[in-house]
Amino acid sequence: MLHLGDFIAALGGELIGDPQLPVERLAPLDAAGPSHLSFLSNPRYRQQLDASRAGCVIVAPAMREAAQARGACIVADDPYLYFARATQLWKRSHARSTGPAIHPSAVIDAQAVIGEGVRIGPQCVVERGARIGEGTVLKARVVVGEDCVIGARCTLHPGVVIGADGFGWAPNAGTWEKIEQLGAVRIGDDVDIGANTCIDRGALADTVIEDGVKLDNLIQVGHNCRIGKHTAIAGCVGIAGSANIGAHCTIGGAAMILGHLTIGDGVNISAGSFVARSILKPGLYTGIFPIDDNAAWEKNAATLKQLHTLRDRIKALEKKL
Amino acid sequence: MLHLGDFIAALGGELIGDPQLPVERLAPLDAAGPSHLSFLSNPRYRQQLDASRAGCVIVAPAMREAAQARGACIVADDPYLYFARATQLWKRSHARSTGPAIHPSAVIDAQAVIGEGVRIGPQCVVERGARIGEGTVLKARVVVGEDCVIGARCTLHPGVVIGADGFGWAPNAGTWEKIEQLGAVRIGDDVDIGANTCIDRGALADTVIEDGVKLDNLIQVGHNCRIGKHTAIAGCVGIAGSANIGAHCTIGGAAMILGHLTIGDGVNISAGSFVARSILKPGLYTGIFPIDDNAAWEKNAATLKQLHTLRDRIKALEKKL
Amino acid sequence: MLHLGDFIAALGGELIGDPQLPVERLAPLDAAGPSHLSFLSNPRYRQQLDASRAGCVIVAPAMREAAQARGACIVADDPYLYFARATQLWKRSHARSTGPAIHPSAVIDAQAVIGEGVRIGPQCVVERGARIGEGTVLKARVVVGEDCVIGARCTLHPGVVIGADGFGWAPNAGTWEKIEQLGAVRIGDDVDIGANTCIDRGALADTVIEDGVKLDNLIQVGHNCRIGKHTAIAGCVGIAGSANIGAHCTIGGAAMILGHLTIGDGVNISAGSFVARSILKPGLYTGIFPIDDNAAWEKNAATLKQLHTLRDRIKALEKKL
Repeated sequence: MLHLGDFIAALGGELIGDPQLPVERLAPLDAAGPSHLSFLSNPRYRQQLDASRAGCVIVAPAMREAAQARGACIVADDPYLYFARATQLWKRSHARSTGPAIHPSAVIDAQAVIGEGVRIGPQCVVERGARIGEGTVLKARVVVGEDCVIGARCTLHPGVVIGADGFGWAPNAGTWEKIEQLGAVRIGDDVDIGANTCIDRGALADTVIEDGVKLDNLIQVGHNCRIGKHTAIAGCVGIAGSANIGAHCTIGGAAMILGHLTIGDGVNISAGSFVARSILKPGLYTGIFPIDDNAAWEKNAATLKQLHTLRDRIKALEKKL
Repeated sequence: MLHLGDFIAALGGELIGDPQLPVERLAPLDAAGPSHLSFLSNPRYRQQLDASRAGCVIVAPAMREAAQARGACIVADDPYLYFARATQLWKRSHARSTGPAIHPSAVIDAQAVIGEGVRIGPQCVVERGARIGEGTVLKARVVVGEDCVIGARCTLHPGVVIGADGFGWAPNAGTWEKIEQLGAVRIGDDVDIGANTCIDRGALADTVIEDGVKLDNLIQVGHNCRIGKHTAIAGCVGIAGSANIGAHCTIGGAAMILGHLTIGDGVNISAGSFVARSILKPGLYTGIFPIDDNAAWEKNAATLKQLHTLRDRIKALEKKL
Repeated sequence: MLHLGDFIAALGGELIGDPQLPVERLAPLDAAGPSHLSFLSNPRYRQQLDASRAGCVIVAPAMREAAQARGACIVADDPYLYFARATQLWKRSHARSTGPAIHPSAVIDAQAVIGEGVRIGPQCVVERGARIGEGTVLKARVVVGEDCVIGARCTLHPGVVIGADGFGWAPNAGTWEKIEQLGAVRIGDDVDIGANTCIDRGALADTVIEDGVKLDNLIQVGHNCRIGKHTAIAGCVGIAGSANIGAHCTIGGAAMILGHLTIGDGVNISAGSFVARSILKPGLYTGIFPIDDNAAWEKNAATLKQLHTLRDRIKALEKKL
């Protein structure tokens, strides 16, 4: 059982309250009870703070008085980061015994190189020449193809496929001639890859995922893409071949990135947006058809198809006046 | 071999025709032959009825005379529902011997709880603390993560991943700090989940899928979502974290739902639409860019980027007049 | 080690240069070194040719002089096709010893029919009545469901699911009644299917993928679709049930095709487009909301929701004048 004082000892922060208070759970403000630790990171939820029954709340210095007025609190410079570390402490403290480091049902080629402290779950397949860096975890049913390299401390969730062939075809009199994909995939350290996400091997050179990249579920990364350090990409995103994505970007869910273009460092793409051209300047970019009730949408969509004629009619009116 | 009379005996309905007629197949109207059973559910396909060579057609009472004029028919209040049940009868009648209830290649933790009559296919992984309700079927290669709960009579198709980590990261000086995902996934009874669909575990509380929900293939459900009873969601849909979706909704294929919003009961979202705000009122909602030949699209898309200036020019014209 | 002369001997073409030059790698123009073979297929990259350090470059006849001016070259009618075949020669020449044709961890039903020279990788599942044509390769973790048929010389990448149930449900007083999916999937010869792609079995008839079709990763093909010969479909595409797609089409990534419609032969759909109606005439079709910086998008999107009123206001102005 963790107590409030254990969090302070491990993570720092200033505790206003009883260090002996047992913490039975971490919980969101609106669901937390007297033996739960919660957090307030966004000042917009200030009202939830006042109403919360949480035993203790992690807050920023600016919220110290408000938090104190309702009970125990931990004051931390960045409450969300503190909360993240609290979940890690929680996980470590409640770790259960683990099975074998390499599950016997995993199929690992004799010529694969498996680093220190690697964990490989049931039904995984690691092919010839693949290398898995130290401390990396392959959950169940992960495939790492021939010659692909995974760095240290990565986590690959179930169903991930690293190193399937890129989609390379040369047209040949109405049929398609295979371009053999001779590259591999190189993944840096501290990369997380979500369930059923696919990263294809390069055609000639390698597909590259740099250190600290976080990929959510069901993402497609085409051959010869590069994703820069610490970029985070939400679920269902598709990235076509040879896209060059910078560092410290965020890409919202179900966005689609065309191939052979460049996205600079620090670019943020809104969920659902389609990126058809390079974007070099940091900032937030969006392209989404706004949803509406169907009848209104139908009227607007019909007009949309004549949009350029509307412009011409306005021009004509302007000339007349 | 089933005969027409067998359908009536099992499913009710009024047969106009010979109960001894053997039924070799169920078939759509346009492909059905003299020993096939077909159905007409949408009056728009009335012409297909007249032209069909089907041995017998399931029709609504309003179509009785038209159907009778061309041959045998089964009159049922809801022909589409009757047809659905006919497929079930067909499947039961043609069931083949089944293999072992739990395939020997499945990896099931000793601390998982498997209900009566559960079937678990090849290469499945059921982790510690997971519970599978009675009569549920896990097809090949399904992963059910630690502590996740599946109700009774569910079907999980190949490649489904239940309980991968939600995508939770706190920014930390340009890198991402992991928020451990301490919740699980709770799935109700009679839920169907399509191939390669992923449902992530909650961050603190659980991700919840209520009774009777039907999910198609390649769907992503983020952490802490709730999907209400009997909602049906078509393929390739993405649902971001903490979305709260009501009961009896339908969501068309490849729609995208942002997180931290509410969709009320009885809302229908058109395929391909992007939902960026809460929708509380039942009805049909759409947001799709209409497809056009590329040249026309280019002209309209270019104008679209100046749309608000067009509005200003109209305003200016109105003032002048 | 391959030499330039080996390419000419195997693939034809005219070599201008030393046939004894060893080729250590195939490489793109901008990365190639003196012992690498490269290619120029698009005249737009002419400048890259001049700057390239490649030992030899595959070029079209029109580029002969330019290529010759900088060093060795292979002149071929279609340099991209020649390059594709060069990758194949490379792969064949560098083939490593392979494991068993059928990996012992694969689960193959005794009533499945496996053709000559088929290779089945680790953790695959081939169910009863399935048939795999000669020379076809199932990479790791592929599922081929009951009675599904795969032609000759196909490649199915990891995580592919063939023959999961189509998404068929009849409404029944607020719940959904299962329509059993009694059809199968029939796949022709020389079909490639990318990682984690799903093709559902038909409801009554079969889902059909014709010869030479190429499907990328994470594609969903609904029940009773037909995809015509040599059509190529990029990643993340969703195709709803009963869509009938012609031969020699290309469909860009993340496009979405509604069901029960027809796409004729030779139609090209741009990436990210939503196809809600039949398209019978060959050509390029597009429907994408253009991305913009977020502030500009917000203004335009707000105006878009009143688009039809703008039209009315223009009409009113036109009448007044």
